[in-house]
Amino acid sequence: MGKTAIRTAVKADLNKPAWEQPQLHNRWHPDIPFSAKIQPGEVVNVECLDWTGGQIGNNDSADDIKYCDLSRIHYLSGPIEVEGAKAGDVLVVEIQDVQPFPEQPWGYCAIFDKNNGGGFLDSHFPNAAKAIWDFEGIFCSSRHIPGVRFPGLIHPGIMGCMPSQELLDTWNKREAELVAHHHSIGTERTVANLPNPNYAFAGAGDAEVAAKVAKEGARTIPPREHGGNCDIKNLSRGSKSYLPVYKDGAGLSIGDLHFSQGDGEISFCGAIEMAGIITIKCEIIKNGMEDLKMNNPMYIPGPVEPHYGPSRYLTFEGLSVDEDGKQHYLDVNVAYKQTCLQFIEYFKKFGYTGEQLYILLSCAPVQGHLAAIVDIPNACTTLGVPVDIFEFECLPKEGGFKPIISSDCALTSGK
Amino acid sequence: MGKTAIRTAVKADLNKPAWEQPQLHNRWHPDIPFSAKIQPGEVVNVECLDWTGGQIGNNDSADDIKYCDLSRIHYLSGPIEVEGAKAGDVLVVEIQDVQPFPEQPWGYCAIFDKNNGGGFLDSHFPNAAKAIWDFEGIFCSSRHIPGVRFPGLIHPGIMGCMPSQELLDTWNKREAELVAHHHSIGTERTVANLPNPNYAFAGAGDAEVAAKVAKEGARTIPPREHGGNCDIKNLSRGSKSYLPVYKDGAGLSIGDLHFSQGDGEISFCGAIEMAGIITIKCEIIKNGMEDLKMNNPMYIPGPVEPHYGPSRYLTFEGLSVDEDGKQHYLDVNVAYKQTCLQFIEYFKKFGYTGEQLYILLSCAPVQGHLAAIVDIPNACTTLGVPVDIFEFECLPKEGGFKPIISSDCALTSGK
Amino acid sequence: MGKTAIRTAVKADLNKPAWEQPQLHNRWHPDIPFSAKIQPGEVVNVECLDWTGGQIGNNDSADDIKYCDLSRIHYLSGPIEVEGAKAGDVLVVEIQDVQPFPEQPWGYCAIFDKNNGGGFLDSHFPNAAKAIWDFEGIFCSSRHIPGVRFPGLIHPGIMGCMPSQELLDTWNKREAELVAHHHSIGTERTVANLPNPNYAFAGAGDAEVAAKVAKEGARTIPPREHGGNCDIKNLSRGSKSYLPVYKDGAGLSIGDLHFSQGDGEISFCGAIEMAGIITIKCEIIKNGMEDLKMNNPMYIPGPVEPHYGPSRYLTFEGLSVDEDGKQHYLDVNVAYKQTCLQFIEYFKKFGYTGEQLYILLSCAPVQGHLAAIVDIPNACTTLGVPVDIFEFECLPKEGGFKPIISSDCALTSGK
Amino acid sequence: MGKTAIRTAVKADLNKPAWEQPQLHNRWHPDIPFSAKIQPGEVVNVECLDWTGGQIGNNDSADDIKYCDLSRIHYLSGPIEVEGAKAGDVLVVEIQDVQPFPEQPWGYCAIFDKNNGGGFLDSHFPNAAKAIWDFEGIFCSSRHIPGVRFPGLIHPGIMGCMPSQELLDTWNKREAELVAHHHSIGTERTVANLPNPNYAFAGAGDAEVAAKVAKEGARTIPPREHGGNCDIKNLSRGSKSYLPVYKDGAGLSIGDLHFSQGDGEISFCGAIEMAGIITIKCEIIKNGMEDLKMNNPMYIPGPVEPHYGPSRYLTFEGLSVDEDGKQHYLDVNVAYKQTCLQFIEYFKKFGYTGEQLYILLSCAPVQGHLAAIVDIPNACTTLGVPVDIFEFECLPKEGGFKPIISSDCALTSGK
Repeated sequence: MGKTAIRTAVKADLNKPAWEQPQLHNRWHPDIPFSAKIQPGEVVNVECLDWTGGQIGNNDSADDIKYCDLSRIHYLSGPIEVEGAKAGDVLVVEIQDVQPFPEQPWGYCAIFDKNNGGGFLDSHFPNAAKAIWDFEGIFCSSRHIPGVRFPGLIHPGIMGCMPSQELLDTWNKREAELVAHHHSIGTERTVANLPNPNYAFAGAGDAEVAAKVAKEGARTIPPREHGGNCDIKNLSRGSKSYLPVYKDGAGLSIGDLHFSQGDGEISFCGAIEMAGIITIKCEIIKNGMEDLKMNNPMYIPGPVEPHYGPSRYLTFEGLSVDEDGKQHYLDVNVAYKQTCLQFIEYFKKFGYTGEQLYILLSCAPVQGHLAAIVDIPNACTTLGVPVDIFEFECLPKEGGFKPIISSDCALTSGK
Repeated sequence: MGKTAIRTAVKADLNKPAWEQPQLHNRWHPDIPFSAKIQPGEVVNVECLDWTGGQIGNNDSADDIKYCDLSRIHYLSGPIEVEGAKAGDVLVVEIQDVQPFPEQPWGYCAIFDKNNGGGFLDSHFPNAAKAIWDFEGIFCSSRHIPGVRFPGLIHPGIMGCMPSQELLDTWNKREAELVAHHHSIGTERTVANLPNPNYAFAGAGDAEVAAKVAKEGARTIPPREHGGNCDIKNLSRGSKSYLPVYKDGAGLSIGDLHFSQGDGEISFCGAIEMAGIITIKCEIIKNGMEDLKMNNPMYIPGPVEPHYGPSRYLTFEGLSVDEDGKQHYLDVNVAYKQTCLQFIEYFKKFGYTGEQLYILLSCAPVQGHLAAIVDIPNACTTLGVPVDIFEFECLPKEGGFKPIISSDCALTSGK
Repeated sequence: MGKTAIRTAVKADLNKPAWEQPQLHNRWHPDIPFSAKIQPGEVVNVECLDWTGGQIGNNDSADDIKYCDLSRIHYLSGPIEVEGAKAGDVLVVEIQDVQPFPEQPWGYCAIFDKNNGGGFLDSHFPNAAKAIWDFEGIFCSSRHIPGVRFPGLIHPGIMGCMPSQELLDTWNKREAELVAHHHSIGTERTVANLPNPNYAFAGAGDAEVAAKVAKEGARTIPPREHGGNCDIKNLSRGSKSYLPVYKDGAGLSIGDLHFSQGDGEISFCGAIEMAGIITIKCEIIKNGMEDLKMNNPMYIPGPVEPHYGPSRYLTFEGLSVDEDGKQHYLDVNVAYKQTCLQFIEYFKKFGYTGEQLYILLSCAPVQGHLAAIVDIPNACTTLGVPVDIFEFECLPKEGGFKPIISSDCALTSGK
Repeated sequence: MGKTAIRTAVKADLNKPAWEQPQLHNRWHPDIPFSAKIQPGEVVNVECLDWTGGQIGNNDSADDIKYCDLSRIHYLSGPIEVEGAKAGDVLVVEIQDVQPFPEQPWGYCAIFDKNNGGGFLDSHFPNAAKAIWDFEGIFCSSRHIPGVRFPGLIHPGIMGCMPSQELLDTWNKREAELVAHHHSIGTERTVANLPNPNYAFAGAGDAEVAAKVAKEGARTIPPREHGGNCDIKNLSRGSKSYLPVYKDGAGLSIGDLHFSQGDGEISFCGAIEMAGIITIKCEIIKNGMEDLKMNNPMYIPGPVEPHYGPSRYLTFEGLSVDEDGKQHYLDVNVAYKQTCLQFIEYFKKFGYTGEQLYILLSCAPVQGHLAAIVDIPNACTTLGVPVDIFEFECLPKEGGFKPIISSDCALTSGK
């Protein structure tokens, strides 16, 4: 009688290439075979590789980031069949815990090279850089960014059910149109990643499936209607996500675990990325998509988030006027960029480099809010930084601050 | 011995036209004479008109909104001279309390007509509408939006110091360029309000000053580097704002009090607008702009914000794919619009009209976050709604919900 | 149309002796006539004197405390008739706001002389002392206890409905038995205050009523089943109290307003005592005492309490071993006393006197918890002190602390 | 390079009798040899048995509770030598995580028989009863108390450093005096457990040590100056405890892990008891006892406690008038008992038995506060119950409630 240890529904092997593990996959496609099955109400563990499938090392060089192969990423755990789930239902996923593997109590947060991934502030910080974070129970700290320490708001970056063929076609069509439009106007930047057979991995799918998935499987970088790479920092312990179901059995996949992340995940590899184990329980709301008018996921955060009082947040503001003084019309992206730069300028006073602060801003539990978006022509955003993550006093005071930090984060050998 | 009643530094008269009260003004300009003087460390009250200067009535018609004269707004209280403040300093404004006038315990939140002000969702809700909110101590409720009740996160929408002439010129130049650019590409929408002599009010300024202010005074709608119309909902009781000082004496002006507002203030007249009294204390950080590297305001929220646990927020998600299914590139504005529409669709199930929900979303203490802005091509935003503002159960459940609301908000007579 | 200013149901005059104001009273007795009437759902203001009826001055001497006449206290505002309330119902009192009188923005917290009132630690601090607290909006600070500043958790110390004659008789009987028992065993300490005609005040009662109330009216110091002097710090803005109703019309009385108080109100005059205005709305739960099995009040705190994160509390522990090293059996009173003394010893390091700390501990928003009461023979209590009330760093650190405080609180002239 | 898995400093074997594991012990005595050694700043795991050393089963009978051998309990993990710690120092123990063993995801909370342990309410509930709690990540629920589910505030019930011989002698002397006094006045109840050789276990101590420990080793039930069985529910993830050091090397011992507990741990076996793993890091504050004036432990709670808003607590009140209507003088124990009984009466309306509620009140995260302890003759305590632990609506309402619970907790076969 009584409960025994929790079953592991999907195993992941840290010592084996990701593409040799058929319980994983790296495209969204309805034909990828289920790699596990669970019951509604059953508590299970799902093991996950880190988002690069182990390409990044615990060392003091950012070379692995600089040369990281971005076509070999997001080997997700799944798709998991949920017994009884039907298209049109809503899958309720309660995240009961997320933990790093005991044998790998560390993660990393990095700036990608402008020419290999880039990030929100890549015009300011074009070169790769990296910080390793060590985990001590609920806390993390980094030898590359001294002076800070905080509890993780641990969560999966990616979670979602497999699309239907119809939904997949919609995605591919609209993203192709975006790419085509930007080609037509000469945009140099990559604006979307279309289906690409390179390193496409259909899990346990046979050759026919693999070929179909390689050809039309949706890439995993963007969040979409099913959830996917939402990178919502609050999908942590105790949260409940309501996910649309598009095919019978649901086909839930999870991956890209984060020990911590700030709103925006701004440096792209902007969370504290890790491999680990997520514990979930799924329930089904029959006909939920129609009954709850859901076209996108909803969620309820969990009750044990790291908890600071409101007056322990130093909050920066920014407007939609860019670094060159140019006025933009209610552009929240511009405003948030300015807000981030305000933070970086302020904390440089303590001796940090810009790269350290860009990384910190990406992975610390900062709150990025849309404050005002109707006061033409300026959008206003705010960025709340919990001062308790710093091991020194950082609130504004007369006379300013003296540098107290003298080391740097991990850089590339060529720098 | 001992403290006596707090001094009122600026009085405002609810029964007199705003433009006849020389302690007020409605443009930003360094030449507007100080209308009051305070000492650092002194606690004072500042009385403020509502943002329309009394144009809106406590009634059941939105006609006053529809025909509201938007050139006669934002009669701010000030500018207040702070003894000893010098250009380059930072002014620390502690908001010690904000209260409605005892004789006017109500406010309003409204949707402006698409052709007179508009708002974030005006393509969906082009017609004027209004809700009156009654105050009961810290709480508010509305006969026009039954079923909700919540404590106010009371705050001023506008607070800032007078610009220097140089900063003013910068504003006027960059905003004129924006307007010019949009004219050149045929934008129909008003993208910025340039200086305009109509109803310009320079407070106690003489004819010469009045003429100069009318010609070049910055309009009050946008937030700018000095603060201004930031509409940051968390500048409430106990908050400390750090404001750049551009001229000796600072010239602090305050107005546009809100009983409550959600992130974004999306319906434009999106807060619960009210007249009232704000209690402040100012301190000066000498040379703070340089020492703290401040180009924009910073703030620390106060310790008595309405306080819900994290698991009492129902959170909606949205992406940068618009209502027509068109894919946009990392556009946070599009994503937040979709997130707002998700909220509206969900709560319509309870019987609310779209207008009621658009208003509610504007003025209730919702949390609008930038979740992910680097996962090309989709930006992802979230909108957290505290479920405890509703007097009924609203969390997702099997079978959906039955309509329980049967009335509407105030509409225009022509509708 | 629309709401006008809130009606004041009970007025109190700060410039008139309390015993000349027939809308007040200072005994609990069912025969005291109603002095005001309100409707269920009606929002009203109730004005209250401070608990001493104005005996204490804003000055730097504790003489007024030393000689305070404790038979002339607790002039409560009421009893208020609530239309429709019947014996057996439950009265729901929502506190919508509490404010000091604008013309009197200060309060006091004091140590009573061991021979005139005493307090929880009077064997350690037998002499009268006092601190004046100035209010700045939601904040308070004291010239007598420098280095601290905090937002008030403002609340009434006393609130309750009039007892029935039967309940009153029960109170008088059981308290007389306690006094008799202690007399019989030779206790010197006053253990309860029995009915006493001295300064008994029956409000608007005629001579016959006055005589009856003088003879048998219950004194106001203790909390009892109806509520009364509960001194619960969390009955603040937005709270809802559920109070038993013992007679038709309820007869609600309120008084003893506190700007702030810690758990225990340990120095007896241990809150920041003030005169002020409380805004309430009452509802009736018919037959609530039976339906909700209520023999004592219940309450739900309000949503805007001052809010510190859990890791901003420095928490002291104490056991039921007294200062002389004597072991007591699971005695929570002894344990809490030791816990309080731990706090005082710790903070003396900063230069505070014991009296200052005893006062601070009484009125700051400290959390006093029963931690363990079954681990024979030691009870264990804890005392959580929010470190953000201090304007200096106070967390434990190597090397201890240097004195930084050099003044004292108000003492008596004879000391 | 980089961090590897956390070292386990003390192992505990669930499948072996506790008294055969020399890294454990069940008395406090300075001569018990260290069973492990750690460095300051080192992160280690410490494994712990449940407080009964495995006597209680995951089943539906309370017989094991009824016949539980209370002389064979509290086999603590340690004492752990902390390199460099000296008598007079303060040991700072950061709890970085606490987890149940993966293979044993359940715990229990029980009522002990009045004649075998008893509890705070044993005059009302004299018979043994038990509830098994299943863990799902951060949550727990019980088949024996349906309708509730909550996240654990997981913590060790016992933590402390070994006493010096002098301190030990003090303990033994004062507790013996208490026992003697109670014998002299004829108290029937056991008021303290004096040293007793029965099942005394000195860990790796040789025969001589074992004999000494058996003779004079302090029993583990009470909390004392060194910490010990404090049963403070908030010593959870991320907390920092400041513990006095009495002998070189400190000799830290830990045990009695709890998944959750309410203030008071009122049913004696009142937490959700479990075996598990605690992750700690220790630092030393040299000469801290003198520098920080510490005679008892202090602590700072961690930042990830389960977090409910203040208005989600239904709070009960109680006075020092006992069930028979007898008035006690400022007796907090009596008041808290009454407060607990108020809770039980209220929730019986939903169909729970008294035993279920007594257990629930012991182990759910309820807040027990000393509200007022100076208002003679009544002490007032409060008990705040987070309503979000219930899966049904439980706030007071007109008409009361209908029974919805129909099962019971585990009882003894003889009942």
